[in-house]
Amino acid sequence: MTEAIGFQELANLNDRYARCIDENQLEEWPDFFSEHCLYKVTTADNVRRGYQAGLIYADTRAMLHDRIASLRQANVYEPQRYRHVISAPAITAEDADGVDCETAFLIIRIMRDGTLSLFATGKYVDRIVNDNGKARINRRVVVCDGGNVDTLLAIPL
Amino acid sequence: MTEAIGFQELANLNDRYARCIDENQLEEWPDFFSEHCLYKVTTADNVRRGYQAGLIYADTRAMLHDRIASLRQANVYEPQRYRHVISAPAITAEDADGVDCETAFLIIRIMRDGTLSLFATGKYVDRIVNDNGKARINRRVVVCDGGNVDTLLAIPL
Amino acid sequence: MTEAIGFQELANLNDRYARCIDENQLEEWPDFFSEHCLYKVTTADNVRRGYQAGLIYADTRAMLHDRIASLRQANVYEPQRYRHVISAPAITAEDADGVDCETAFLIIRIMRDGTLSLFATGKYVDRIVNDNGKARINRRVVVCDGGNVDTLLAIPL
Repeated sequence: MTEAIGFQELANLNDRYARCIDENQLEEWPDFFSEHCLYKVTTADNVRRGYQAGLIYADTRAMLHDRIASLRQANVYEPQRYRHVISAPAITAEDADGVDCETAFLIIRIMRDGTLSLFATGKYVDRIVNDNGKARINRRVVVCDGGNVDTLLAIPL
Repeated sequence: MTEAIGFQELANLNDRYARCIDENQLEEWPDFFSEHCLYKVTTADNVRRGYQAGLIYADTRAMLHDRIASLRQANVYEPQRYRHVISAPAITAEDADGVDCETAFLIIRIMRDGTLSLFATGKYVDRIVNDNGKARINRRVVVCDGGNVDTLLAIPL
Repeated sequence: MTEAIGFQELANLNDRYARCIDENQLEEWPDFFSEHCLYKVTTADNVRRGYQAGLIYADTRAMLHDRIASLRQANVYEPQRYRHVISAPAITAEDADGVDCETAFLIIRIMRDGTLSLFATGKYVDRIVNDNGKARINRRVVVCDGGNVDTLLAIPL
């Protein structure tokens, strides 16, 4: 374990991140990231083929705020609801400033009539840093295994 | 982390709780709770609308025992089987006596022919206390995202 | 917690194990096991009926290597992809050499067209030991709740 960020802190960060989305408190979502950051959504197929471009790309916290603002404006109707289930983080590298880690996720979509469906699975490929005493996401590449990519664009993953 | 109950102890409590149900050792289920407790099953819709009533409600360990006894009597046939997958607990508050935490869950139902289906997702909204040296559930509000509410009544969640 | 292997080390082992399979780095899979080990795949029904035989059985690391070699030879086409989501390990016993633990798992299969399906759920019933300073699996009995048993034979679980 690094001195910078421990296992429990990482697990806790991921849980709060997931709850933020699942509780539809999206305005708080950008605060999980460093001011200068990378948030990218891509697919395992794209990664395998070496495609750099993501389906979604943002590199400042301000862009993440913009994204949520647009989403709120576009959604006249109550948004779909989601439930994340997240594995424990697997730390792949660490140094004095933070850790690299990967975490598997599973997202269930809850339909209006209460029906549940498998929405997306994949992994977060992360760089988590100690940002003035608070663990924040410096880089999160969301690698989706599959799923309905069009719909994926609507909410943060 | 509180001195009262640590992260690992919470994670361990949740795992043993899930295994107790999944292994059909339901007679041991009430022992996860304090003698005076709250166990309530409700839905995210009900919470959003401010409805206080739950689909299931018990406020003593004895009521939980009664519930299992009724369930055993009613189930002439072998019960359905379930598999819980549970996230790490997200601690939302803590004091000297215990912690408040929320934990996402996903429950799969296993049919007789081996088919798997998404049964329920949601979160536990918990108060976990140090009960004479043992971590016990003082309050567990099971907030279901959706799913077949009628069927939910059959087994503890 | 045992002195031999702590909770985080167990969680980390399980995560690396799952990633190894999900990333299709199967050649590294046998290294998670002790040289003399037990890897068995069975079903909850078989366990209940007291059947000792497993669908898959190996008791040396060399047999696990053989299994992967056969799998690679048989799979002319790109294999299906999988995503494991794994609970925290529940430690059931511990001594100076290692721990016994059980861990719930959920495996999603990703089809070619990106469709996701519930592939398998179950639990790992493990003996994890300190193998010259490294946590390794001495015994892993994979107890599947159900699912398509024929297909289960293709990849490690």
